[in-house]
Formats: sequence, structure tokens, C-alpha cells
Amino acid sequence: MANKIDVAIIVGSGSDLPMMNETVKTLKEFGLFYSLNIASAHRASKYLKQCIQEAENSGVKVFIAAAGMAAALPGVIASETVLPVIGVPVDGRNLSSFDSLFSIVQMPKGVPVATVALGSAGAVNAALLAVQIIAVVNENLREKLRVYRNKMSNAVVSEDLKLRENGIEKYIERLKK
Amino acid sequence: MANKIDVAIIVGSGSDLPMMNETVKTLKEFGLFYSLNIASAHRASKYLKQCIQEAENSGVKVFIAAAGMAAALPGVIASETVLPVIGVPVDGRNLSSFDSLFSIVQMPKGVPVATVALGSAGAVNAALLAVQIIAVVNENLREKLRVYRNKMSNAVVSEDLKLRENGIEKYIERLKK
Amino acid sequence: MANKIDVAIIVGSGSDLPMMNETVKTLKEFGLFYSLNIASAHRASKYLKQCIQEAENSGVKVFIAAAGMAAALPGVIASETVLPVIGVPVDGRNLSSFDSLFSIVQMPKGVPVATVALGSAGAVNAALLAVQIIAVVNENLREKLRVYRNKMSNAVVSEDLKLRENGIEKYIERLKK
Amino acid sequence: MANKIDVAIIVGSGSDLPMMNETVKTLKEFGLFYSLNIASAHRASKYLKQCIQEAENSGVKVFIAAAGMAAALPGVIASETVLPVIGVPVDGRNLSSFDSLFSIVQMPKGVPVATVALGSAGAVNAALLAVQIIAVVNENLREKLRVYRNKMSNAVVSEDLKLRENGIEKYIERLKK
Amino acid sequence: MANKIDVAIIVGSGSDLPMMNETVKTLKEFGLFYSLNIASAHRASKYLKQCIQEAENSGVKVFIAAAGMAAALPGVIASETVLPVIGVPVDGRNLSSFDSLFSIVQMPKGVPVATVALGSAGAVNAALLAVQIIAVVNENLREKLRVYRNKMSNAVVSEDLKLRENGIEKYIERLKK
Amino acid sequence: MANKIDVAIIVGSGSDLPMMNETVKTLKEFGLFYSLNIASAHRASKYLKQCIQEAENSGVKVFIAAAGMAAALPGVIASETVLPVIGVPVDGRNLSSFDSLFSIVQMPKGVPVATVALGSAGAVNAALLAVQIIAVVNENLREKLRVYRNKMSNAVVSEDLKLRENGIEKYIERLKK
Amino acid sequence: MANKIDVAIIVGSGSDLPMMNETVKTLKEFGLFYSLNIASAHRASKYLKQCIQEAENSGVKVFIAAAGMAAALPGVIASETVLPVIGVPVDGRNLSSFDSLFSIVQMPKGVPVATVALGSAGAVNAALLAVQIIAVVNENLREKLRVYRNKMSNAVVSEDLKLRENGIEKYIERLKK
Amino acid sequence: MANKIDVAIIVGSGSDLPMMNETVKTLKEFGLFYSLNIASAHRASKYLKQCIQEAENSGVKVFIAAAGMAAALPGVIASETVLPVIGVPVDGRNLSSFDSLFSIVQMPKGVPVATVALGSAGAVNAALLAVQIIAVVNENLREKLRVYRNKMSNAVVSEDLKLRENGIEKYIERLKK
Repeated sequence: MANKIDVAIIVGSGSDLPMMNETVKTLKEFGLFYSLNIASAHRASKYLKQCIQEAENSGVKVFIAAAGMAAALPGVIASETVLPVIGVPVDGRNLSSFDSLFSIVQMPKGVPVATVALGSAGAVNAALLAVQIIAVVNENLREKLRVYRNKMSNAVVSEDLKLRENGIEKYIERLKK
Repeated sequence: MANKIDVAIIVGSGSDLPMMNETVKTLKEFGLFYSLNIASAHRASKYLKQCIQEAENSGVKVFIAAAGMAAALPGVIASETVLPVIGVPVDGRNLSSFDSLFSIVQMPKGVPVATVALGSAGAVNAALLAVQIIAVVNENLREKLRVYRNKMSNAVVSEDLKLRENGIEKYIERLKK
Repeated sequence: MANKIDVAIIVGSGSDLPMMNETVKTLKEFGLFYSLNIASAHRASKYLKQCIQEAENSGVKVFIAAAGMAAALPGVIASETVLPVIGVPVDGRNLSSFDSLFSIVQMPKGVPVATVALGSAGAVNAALLAVQIIAVVNENLREKLRVYRNKMSNAVVSEDLKLRENGIEKYIERLKK
Repeated sequence: MANKIDVAIIVGSGSDLPMMNETVKTLKEFGLFYSLNIASAHRASKYLKQCIQEAENSGVKVFIAAAGMAAALPGVIASETVLPVIGVPVDGRNLSSFDSLFSIVQMPKGVPVATVALGSAGAVNAALLAVQIIAVVNENLREKLRVYRNKMSNAVVSEDLKLRENGIEKYIERLKK
Repeated sequence: MANKIDVAIIVGSGSDLPMMNETVKTLKEFGLFYSLNIASAHRASKYLKQCIQEAENSGVKVFIAAAGMAAALPGVIASETVLPVIGVPVDGRNLSSFDSLFSIVQMPKGVPVATVALGSAGAVNAALLAVQIIAVVNENLREKLRVYRNKMSNAVVSEDLKLRENGIEKYIERLKK
Repeated sequence: MANKIDVAIIVGSGSDLPMMNETVKTLKEFGLFYSLNIASAHRASKYLKQCIQEAENSGVKVFIAAAGMAAALPGVIASETVLPVIGVPVDGRNLSSFDSLFSIVQMPKGVPVATVALGSAGAVNAALLAVQIIAVVNENLREKLRVYRNKMSNAVVSEDLKLRENGIEKYIERLKK
Repeated sequence: MANKIDVAIIVGSGSDLPMMNETVKTLKEFGLFYSLNIASAHRASKYLKQCIQEAENSGVKVFIAAAGMAAALPGVIASETVLPVIGVPVDGRNLSSFDSLFSIVQMPKGVPVATVALGSAGAVNAALLAVQIIAVVNENLREKLRVYRNKMSNAVVSEDLKLRENGIEKYIERLKK
Repeated sequence: MANKIDVAIIVGSGSDLPMMNETVKTLKEFGLFYSLNIASAHRASKYLKQCIQEAENSGVKVFIAAAGMAAALPGVIASETVLPVIGVPVDGRNLSSFDSLFSIVQMPKGVPVATVALGSAGAVNAALLAVQIIAVVNENLREKLRVYRNKMSNAVVSEDLKLRENGIEKYIERLKK
């Protein structure tokens, strides 16, 4: 993985990967290169630093880190790099997931983490935010984002047209399938 | 304000400006150009769009938006641009400020807002995150961030030395002054 | 749908429609005309405005908007019209659904959203509130509301009579069927 | 108070009146007639019913009820009338004011309360929502709402112009005065 | 049901009865007479008053009321009687059940509701509290409570002995059966 | 204090006494005899048991216990007596006082605590609930409760009359004095 | 069980044992001797004291207590011994498990409980914390902890290698098996 | 500070020291040697490691770490040592201090932090817990803890005697002085 990468994704546990696959797919959709690692701020802090270093050596531009509970991972990465770090709070069984969200978003003065929504919405949005950051100086990528937005907007309109045509009963019927 | 700007700051209310002055000062510290506007997603949505357009015309790279309560401002800006939008939740009197934080961070799939901490920590970190984003392709600015980090780290060490030398009683005495 | 409508229902996602079918059924029960659209404050803001305009052209009297997470939809509609807007918070997986409730109810001064309960109770009550609003100058509709209330009250009494007659064990048995 | 009234305001305690004076002022601004009573669902339930009856006899169109803690007042009014009832949660010292908000907004199926924001934002918005409801069939009042919105929007723009002219330091200085 | 009763149980919905069957069973265990009604503060307020009156006519000593969401039922009963009212918050799908708990426990000065735990623990404890209240002047019943406590305490000891004898693995095995 | 008492009040800390003075005053208003002790489930558990024993020897009928934070006091008293125990959660600086409320109300099956509201509302209501419990077999005391309720209701009406006569501006003026 | 023990585990209910089996397994892994009892602060307070005494007689060094809801167990043990007490909050159905966590962690000045995470993470960590405490004067045990940490760290690295080799799709596939 | 120390206290900010002075005073009361440092997991991670190393070289037995907001400090220390780490959540302005508590207590499997109460109660209890841990193999220190407990218990009794003698009015009067 000495190849050039754009985005380094680091998750705190292998069990976060089904959720973070949405991040991977979205990055691929925009043609970005990514690395993906399991590391841990608490259980494998040296290896985490190694992964961060490896990513920086590969020319990474943005980090994405996902973690649950007392989610120190994004903040610890942010303390080791001056590149932007995006934090994805992983939803858990307890405390309404306030623990992972607050552990990530409430960073003290000086070391920001760009926090996105809990769970799969956050997983997609982390990728999109990374694309937006890289696109700041890349008009080509910005254009791709505009196309993505248009598709998203058209998808909403298209759903609405299905609803107008079929009515709510049939629309719901279709949802169940 | 047809000048070139790097960061556009938009606040939902003039009363947010004392807090957001920290954002302004931090951006200045890094030599970035900024614009600053009062607008509102709910009370002046057309003017908001005008401000967004004006910023885009000035070559803005990152938006910072601060709002309280049902804080729609950052999300609405995010829906109007493909540039990165940083959201600063303004702390309020009620609901432990869960309202502004959740209204900003819980964006649906497709339209991310990079959310930072509540209040003044968030105000500083929003600026730093904007600098980090712009620094992705600006080694000079990245170096400035490293210097800033070093100064921050040295400030911690310096405080610790004062504490070691004077002991806790004198240190606390000094705090009160 | 250039026909005259009384209530315009707008949902943020097709997946909200099973819940909002309760709104539709209740409006029908009172003989009101409604339109129903999927739109989005964040993903299809222009189409949303088109839907609002279309509804206003059809003589709509009340809007009902349902959304989850950082639920900006009801507030954005409220900022575009001076007609009453009823917001239904959609319950989600995270944060005990505080996110959608607070994003809808905590509107800033000047732009109210009439917020009802989370989930299916809110879906029914949104329709009833719309009927009540339209009934303010429609004695016929007010009478229908009184009949509805009486039926509701009688249904409670009727359940109580079943309980008195059969005892709790049989009543519970019946519930399971 | 046998005069014709448009809006009946009922508060659970005299101590809520400073906050609810914003409601009164806003209703006056729109030229609506109102009644104002202190009553209580828990401590003076018979008198409350008398107040509701009195209001209905005066041709009231909308109720506004403000209460704190286990705020049953709006819901009890809503169970006694088929007119729209707007609930204003009064913020308290404890439980982050979740108690009054949840007691008002989480009404069961069949008896809606149109809930607005906590505290003074809610006090103003309750009045505006009442105006919007009455304006549904009153184009003259709808026009006044549009004028009000325009003034609100202009006030935002005007603040922004002051900020642009004076810069943030002077703007903040002015705030302190 | 003109018979003499000790405890009147009133639930806000038939769906609360499986939970409240624990209350019934516990009251029976202590040989108390009870009545059981479905009523509603919001949907059948007149019938509720009738049920309260009927209970008072039957010599009731304590009320137990169970309700969910914006649970006004216990408070409304408490406002209609000077007998002790025990409130059981019914757990719901949303807001971590803060809504029913806070709506019941946060009664304003002057009208107390004796609140117990959410869900089935509360259902049992409501009955025990009613027994305790009636036992204040009934040494015979107090003795039954002591016996109940002893059995409860012995049950704990007995479980511990099983655990000591069998070890944790076998104990857990037994739990699954 | 070998005299006969009706209600034993136990507080976890001397600092709770200003709040609990409302309990004392309310009990006195009804002519009940009370004892008042500072004890602690965690810091003086043996002395607590002594106080409980002393109260039982004095013929106490109801316990009232007030405590903050991880408020074990009411529950521990409840585990030592079969008399009714009323718990008053003391409001604190942190966690929105969820800690004291949940520690008191969420008692496990078998050992109820009759929980009232946080803070001074709870302090008054604890006394009233104790009176209601003792009044179950004391028609004279029940009559006093009815008189108290009437006075309370009349006080609401009287405030409303002042408001009707003077208007809101003068009423608020009077509040400030 | 007059044998020498290192750690005494006490649970509030037999139903907590599947979760606490993780504690047992972890203690065994480090070769520590433990006792395990079901007791209850509220339902079997005398027996609880007996268990505490028995443990102290066996030379116990650390207590671990697990309880849910208004979880007084760890605090009551802490008030009976000067040995360290570790509290494990058991997650429940309601209130997002705030009740058990706050009842355990918010101990008043003078009687600490060392609180760990909710649920199974806490069950493992309670054991590890007990090992760490005993290891303070036991270099052999400290070495075992270092080995444990290394294994844990290596397990993270090993998972990462699997991910690097197989890619995310295959990794997720493997998770499902 | 190459002297032998028992407890190493590390705070995330100099502003935490007034609160943590309670920890220092309590440790002194028990004759323990301590070191005290300002460091930061996020802003001075290398210096933090240096402080940890320095403490370990001085023979430290227990760490105490205090931090607010996204409080990673205790967890990061815990990941660097196999000695027990006690975490003190610092109370802040926002989110009811859920952020610091949850960031500290919700540590993942494998790396425990012994969490105590928020604020000054936690500051004292952190010291007591450290004493208890060191006292596990130090009967002399355990005896001091018993004496401390007795004094604490006697202080409660002494307050109660003052209350019994003077009555509540005079007791409250005395509190105000």
C-alpha cells in the first residue's frame, strides 16, 4: 500500500466495517484512492501511529475515523496530524449513542474533528465530506459533486413522481417488496 | 467585498458574534481572508442565498456557519454549495443545547456538515478546521499549522512548569487574578 | 393535481409514507382534499419550493411536513409560506429521536412550526390539527370533530365495559389474538 | 370580557406572564383580540373549564396555553375543545426542561396540541401561529403576516449591513451597550 | 362493582393491561379488593371522572394510574381526589420513556403523584406501595408485608445457594431453559 | 424525641434543609407531628438505621427522605421498613439532576419508593402525600386536605381576578416588587 | 468458600450472570481467586452484609458489584468496606440505561465506587481493573497484564492484516459467518 | 520530582486545578506522596507520555486524570500503563456534562478507567479511591481509612445533633452565615 492514496479510513473495530463499507463505496464512486485500516487508540496506540504515518507517507489528504463508545480514535488521529480528520460516531446499544457522538464532537480548543451523523448516514457523509475537501482545489471533482447532487435531487423527484402516479397505497405496497 | 476570500462565515444572529470573534481571530492568525455575514435560513432565506452566491463569486473555499436552537443554517448552506460547510452549534438556555448540536450534526445521507464542538471551543476549532482544509494543498499553511500546534503544546508544557515550580496553591492564587 | 386541496403533506423520504398513511386516512375520514409529495430541504430544495408553490396555487390551507434526523423540512416550508405548518418528527434509530423532535420544535422567533408527537401518534394528530385549523371557520367540520371525539370517547368506554365484563385475564387473552 | 375575542391565552401560573407578555404584544401587533387567564389543570380544574367555556362563548378561534414541569394544561384544554390549542413549554430549573416540552408535545392519538419552542421564542411563535391559523381564511391578515416576514427579513439584512460597514469589533462593542 | 374496594386501578389504554396484570396479581396476593378501569384524561375525561367517583363511592383508599407518552392520567386523577394517587409510567418506543416518567413525576406544588419505576417493576411496586399505604393502620397487613419481604429475601438467598452449589456455568445453563 | 410522631423526615445532608423546610411547614399546617434527621445511606449507615428504628418506636406512619446525586437514601430506608417511604430528589449542578431522580424512582421490584418532583415542588408535595396517606383512615384530615385544595384553587382564581382587573403590564410590574 | 479469595463479585440478580461471566472468565485468565454471590441492597440487605463479611474473612482485596436500575448495590458495599469497590452498571430497557450508570457513578463525597462501562465492556473491564489494583504490588501480575495488552494489540494488528489481504468485501463476508 | 511518589495526578487544563485541589488535600491527609502535572491527550500528547513515564519511574502506584468535554486524557493514560487509572469528569457548560462523563466511563473492552463522580465529589473520591487501592496491601493505610470513615460518620451524627438541639429554623440560619 505504498501507492498514492487520497483518503485514509481507520476504524476502531472490524465490526464497524459493514457500516463503513458505505464510505468505501462512495469514495470509489468519485474515483478517489483510499486505504482502510483497523487500529485502536486504546488497544493498539503504537500501531495506530504507524498507520497514520503510513498514510501520510502515501500522500493522504484526509482522514476518516469511525469509533463507538468512548470514541477517542478520531481525536487521537487529529492530535497526530494537521490534515483534516472526519469522525464518524458508531451507534451502540447504550446511552442512546450519546457516548460516541459526544466523545467525537466535543473536542477541546486547538484540535478539531469534523463530525458527521451517527451510523450509516454518517458513513456516506464522511466520504462526501472528504470528496468536498479534496475538491476545494479540484474543479473536476467539484463538477462530479454537482452531478452527484443532481442525481440525488432527481432521485427525490423521481420518487415523488412514482408516488403521484401510483398513490400512497401502491407506493407503500412497493416498499414492502 | 468583491475581494478574494478564503472562508465565508455566516451567523444566524448578531448575538452569535462575540463567540464567533474567536473564529475570526484564528483565521486572521493564519493570514486567511474571510467574509462575515448575518443571515438566516428561516427568517431571511433569500438573503442567505445571496450571501452564499456572493461568497462563491469571491472564490470562497470553505463555509463556516453558526446557529442555535433548531439550527438549520449550516445544513441549508450545505444544500446550496458543494464546498465544505463547517457547522458551529451555538449553546442556548434550554435542552442542554442538544437542540443546536443535533440539528447540525444529524444531517441526512448526501449533504454533510462538518460539525465541531458547542460554543467557544467550536468557534476556534471551526477556524482551524477551515485552515486544515485549505492547507490540504498548501504546504506553507500546513507548516503554519504545525507551528501553531507546537506553540499550543509548548503552552501546555509551560503551564506545567509553572505548576511544578510554584505548587498548586500559588498556581490557583494566580488563576484568580 | 391542479385540483383544489386543503392540506399539503410533504415527507422527506418515501420511507416515511407507511407512517404518514395514518395522516392521509384521517384527512380522508374528514372529507378533506390533500396533496402528498416527497421532497427534501437538503437534497432537493428547488423541487421542494416547486411543491410548496404548487400547493399554494391549489389553495392549500395547511401544510404537514414529516422528517427525521436533522429535520429541516418543516422549518424550511414554514420560512416559505405564511400558512400554518405542522411538523411531524419521524422516529429514528439513534439519540432517542431527540434529533428530529428538537430540530422541528425549537424554531427561532418569527417562524413557528406546530409540532406534534413522534411517530404514528403524531401522524394522526397532524391530520386532526389540520382539520381543527380548517374547522375554525367551518362549523360543519367542527361538528365532525365533535362526532370524532365522541366516537373516540365511546371507544374508551366500550373497551372498559369489555374489561369489566370479561376480567383482565380474558381481556389480555383477546389482545394476543 | 364578554367581548369578542380571537385568541384565549391561559397560563398555569402568574410567574409565566413576563414570558407570555411577548405573546400578548405580538397578537396586538396583528390587531387580534385576546383574553388572558391564569388557571391550572391540576390546582383549579373547575375554574379552568369555566375559562375555556367563557372563551368559547366569546367566539375564540385559537387557544394558547403555557405551562411548566408536568405541563398538563395544554392537553387538558385540548381535551375540552375542538378548536386548535397551541402549547408553550415553560422552561424550568431542572431536567433541562425536557419535562415541560415532553408533557406537551407527546400527546396521544386523537388530541393534538400544536407545540412551539421553549421559553420566549415559543411565546412569540405561539402568537404568530395563532395569527397564521386565523389568517387561513383572512387574506388581509395573511398580508400582514407577509409584511411582518418582510420586516423580519429586512431586519436581518440591516444587521448584516451594520456588520459589513463597521466590522465585527465595533459591532460587538455596540452589542454590549 | 358497587362492592367495597381498596384500590382503584385506572389505565390509559387497554394495551397497558398485560403490564398492569402484575399490579392486579400483587394486590390479590395481599387479599385486597380492587377495581380496574380503562379511561383517559385526554380522550374520555368525563368517563374518567365517573370512574373516579364510582371508586370513591366504593370506599377506595388508594388510586393507581398507568399511562404513557404525555401521561396526564395520574395527575388529573390526583386533581380530583384527596386520596393518594400512585403513578406508573408506561414505557414507550421514543424519547427513552422520559416523556411518561417526567409527565407523571414532575407534578407542580399542591398535587402530588406518588411515582414508581417504569414498566413492570413499577407495576409490581405500585401494588406494594398501595398495600403499604393501607397497612399504615392495619398491623395484620403490615405483617403480611414483612412475610412478603422475608420471602423475597429468602428467594435471593436461595438463588445464591444454587449459584454456590452449581457454579456460574450451570446456573447460566439453567437460565436459558 | 420519644414523643409520638406521624412523619419521619430524613435528609442526606444539612444543605438539603432549606429546601426541606417547605416539607416541615406543610406538615405543621396540617397539625402532624414529625421528626427530622440528618443521616446518610453511604456515610453513616448505622446511624441511619438507628434513626429509622427510633422513628418506628415513635409510631411513625410515613417516611420522607431527600437526597441528591446517587441518591440511595430513600431506597435504603425503604428496604428497612414496610411503612411507605416518600423520596424527594434533590436537584444538583450536573447531569440535569437526572442522577437523583433516576436513583430514587427506578427502584427494583419489591421495594417501592413513592417519588415526587425535584426540588421545592417535591418538598411540598412530599408533605402533602404524607398527609394524604395518613388521611386514608382519617376523615378529619381528609377534610383539611379538601380545604387546602379549595384554598389553592381560590388562590389561582384570585390571581386571575387581579390579572383581569389590572391587565398584564401592571401584573408583571407587581411581580417585580 | 472459606478459601482465600482475591476478588468478590456480587450481582443484584441472577439474570446479570450471563453478562458477569465475562468478569469471571477474565479473572480466571489471570489466575485470581474469586467468590461469586447473588445478593441485593434492597431485597436482601442483611444477607448482603453477610456476603461482604464472608468475603472480607477470606482475605478479599477488591469487590466487583453489578446492578441495574436504581443500582444501590455497589454504593452500599462501598459504605461497608474500605476495600476498593468496582461498579458495573447493568443495561436495562428504559431511560437509555442512564439510571444504572448515574446511580453508580454519582457517589457523594467520601464513598467512591470505581465505575466502568455499561454492559459487557464493563464486565470485562471490571475484572481487568481488579487485576490492575491487585497488581499494584505484584510485579508478576503486572507482567501478565502487559502480556494481555500485547495480545490485545496484536489481535488488532492481525485483524488489520486480514483486512489488508482480503479487502473489505471478503472481510465483511467472513463477519457474517 | 525524582522522589518516590504514590499517586500521579494529571489534569487536562490549569483551570481544572481549583477543583483538583480537593484531590491533593485528601491525598495529603492520608500522607501519600503525589505528583501533579498539566498535560493533554490532544494538545501535548508527547509531553503527556513523558509525564506518564516520569511517574512510572518514580514508582507511582495509581494515576488520577481529570478532563472535560471529549475527555480522552484518562483513557489515553490507561492505554499507556497497566497501573490503575482513575478518571474524574470535569463538569462543563454544555450537554449537562454528559460529554466528559461518557467519554471517560464508556471505555472499550480491555482498557478500564475507574470513573468517579463529576466535579468536586469526584475530586475527593478519586483521592480516596487511590488511597483504597494502595491500602489493599497496607493495613496501616486501611486503618486510616477506617478512621476517616468514622470521622465522616461522626460528622453526620454531629450535624444531626445540632439539628435536633436547635431545630430547623436555627439550623438554616446558621447555614447562611
